[in-house]
Amino acid sequence: MPGFVNAHTHVPMAAFRGACEDVRDRLLRYIFPMERELVTPELVYWSSLFSLTEMSRSGTTAFADMYYFEHEVAKATAAIGMRGLLGETVLGQPAPDSKEPYGGLEYARRFIATWKGHDLIQPCIAPHAPYTVDFSGLERVRDEAEYSGVDIMMHIAETEPEHRQFSASHGSVLKYLDSIEGFLSPRLLAVHMIYLDESDIELAAARGFRVAHCPASNAKSGRPICPAWRMIQAGIPLGLATDGPLSGNGMDLQGVLNIYPKMQKVREGRRELLPAAEALRAATMGGAQALGLGTEIGSLEKGKRADFIVVDTEDFNMQPIYDWNAAVVFGMRPHNVESVFVGGRQIVAEGRTLLVDQDEIMSEMRKLREKCASFIARLTYPS
Amino acid sequence: MPGFVNAHTHVPMAAFRGACEDVRDRLLRYIFPMERELVTPELVYWSSLFSLTEMSRSGTTAFADMYYFEHEVAKATAAIGMRGLLGETVLGQPAPDSKEPYGGLEYARRFIATWKGHDLIQPCIAPHAPYTVDFSGLERVRDEAEYSGVDIMMHIAETEPEHRQFSASHGSVLKYLDSIEGFLSPRLLAVHMIYLDESDIELAAARGFRVAHCPASNAKSGRPICPAWRMIQAGIPLGLATDGPLSGNGMDLQGVLNIYPKMQKVREGRRELLPAAEALRAATMGGAQALGLGTEIGSLEKGKRADFIVVDTEDFNMQPIYDWNAAVVFGMRPHNVESVFVGGRQIVAEGRTLLVDQDEIMSEMRKLREKCASFIARLTYPS
Repeated sequence: MPGFVNAHTHVPMAAFRGACEDVRDRLLRYIFPMERELVTPELVYWSSLFSLTEMSRSGTTAFADMYYFEHEVAKATAAIGMRGLLGETVLGQPAPDSKEPYGGLEYARRFIATWKGHDLIQPCIAPHAPYTVDFSGLERVRDEAEYSGVDIMMHIAETEPEHRQFSASHGSVLKYLDSIEGFLSPRLLAVHMIYLDESDIELAAARGFRVAHCPASNAKSGRPICPAWRMIQAGIPLGLATDGPLSGNGMDLQGVLNIYPKMQKVREGRRELLPAAEALRAATMGGAQALGLGTEIGSLEKGKRADFIVVDTEDFNMQPIYDWNAAVVFGMRPHNVESVFVGGRQIVAEGRTLLVDQDEIMSEMRKLREKCASFIARLTYPS
Repeated sequence: MPGFVNAHTHVPMAAFRGACEDVRDRLLRYIFPMERELVTPELVYWSSLFSLTEMSRSGTTAFADMYYFEHEVAKATAAIGMRGLLGETVLGQPAPDSKEPYGGLEYARRFIATWKGHDLIQPCIAPHAPYTVDFSGLERVRDEAEYSGVDIMMHIAETEPEHRQFSASHGSVLKYLDSIEGFLSPRLLAVHMIYLDESDIELAAARGFRVAHCPASNAKSGRPICPAWRMIQAGIPLGLATDGPLSGNGMDLQGVLNIYPKMQKVREGRRELLPAAEALRAATMGGAQALGLGTEIGSLEKGKRADFIVVDTEDFNMQPIYDWNAAVVFGMRPHNVESVFVGGRQIVAEGRTLLVDQDEIMSEMRKLREKCASFIARLTYPS
């Protein structure tokens, strides 16, 4: 079958996975301080390879990512042989790779110049969110993306305070962003998109941008259920995503695929809605479209890149099979993936990575964990 | 760690898994006709062994089950070496193992006499639901359970029509059941319990019965989110469950454990609610209490039975570990289970069953699938 496409991740955050779980105001109180103290190019490189190992072994062939030191993510992606739409984060405050606000813009320029035209890597630019990058910052991002001919990737309508802030000022987050001329365009990959009313969905469809839907991560944060099915009905290209390892934990797309149609059925109160074949589409073709690669990957068709996986359907959890889509959507687990090919090149065989040494990656992760643990313990248990 | 306890299943339905997915009115239009045509003692035995293979290999050591020909389920359970609370279904209509309504009562009597006192099997009696067993039928079930000293297991407050019917007549399903003297008692394991208001939760707590919560199966049916966290706050013993392979598909408890705290966080809109340690409790000790075995299993303590599993935490999906509970709840997948012990006896080693031949079970399932496929195809695509 076609490889899974993970439409939104922060792969370098694997080193922090499982820390500071189940706490309020996690981003501002825990994650931002942790990142400022601990994120280095070395952490980003090895931690990315760690996530990508879990992802590729569970059948993901392409993904979209935003983080700091994204050059290191690109190196890791090329090393393991996966396909990535990768965006350097732009923040209106100091970040791990920039002491100046908006330093990410300068980094993004160099990053794009370095990777543009690479066979596996599509560089882009990733403003963090409407509440961390201001109006003029978003205008600069838009200009930079247009000038370089790259995509924009941003968290949109993800949090309740963001929703309240922009509803009060502009009617909704999306209407605020639409007040920035040309910002809502087919160039945009909008991530999360939870707080939307019907007029926002119409606006999104009219502007022609793409959406990454993170049902497991959103639920873990206690957010309302995203109107994903309604966006699909409106014709919006929508891909499934894990989100980062700190937000969604498991980096296999099976866990997300299992939860996605269920939560939509709950939201709409209809068991027949989003049947398995349609659900699976979001994890393959929908993801390809979210990455802007709908004509190149996402399905097994003549003329497309050979991004595919071989699944061992003979294990108990996938049998019996009356309906292949249901077996994949509800039954498949990461260990069923036997081998993985990207662009015709095999990158996983019998559950092991072929182009990178996964034992070395695990060993580097152990060192990173030791470096992070004492700082994280102080954050988790404040005095 | 202690083995997982699956508080509600219909293990013999594995032969039908993946058929007739994502359709309206599934139980009455598809499942009941399929069962009347296809369910035989032979199907029940092999199909149970099939589910139990998937369950034990993914770390489940004990479970509760209700179906027809439950004697065959008990044989399969004893053969694979698992622990089961097993109830013969009672229906007020003809059933696969009885041409007469309420024939399950007679079967249950023999079943209880055969298995009572067995080290691994606790027989009980399982009226299907308030809308399929009438008032006097439930009185007979209550009398039989009291006479035999066994538990009662029943689907309660699961469906919208049931909720409407008994809300109109008695205020709620639970209030209707409370009008049957002595029916709501500590002897009862109530399954689903979705449609409850605060007064129902108070009533359930006051009557002292136990609950099996099936978040993945309920969501797949598009039902509202069960107030599981609220029941736990009220002191009601609550265990996690997959439900049957046709309703929940995956029979590993990891898939359910992954979805359970997330859906409760969504329901209550609070990310800090039901932290990993508490979520894990429902899959172990909560399940043990649901089965009425809280003093015997569910935790690793001196004096309890040695029902435990060995987990390989060295794989990428479980690392790094800052918080063991988070690693298990959000990160663990079925393939991480290395070995499984029930009552001190090893039943799974290196992912393979030790007491039954899993290749033979798979081969029998292939034959069952062939027998079922043509009938199911006619049901799935009505002319």
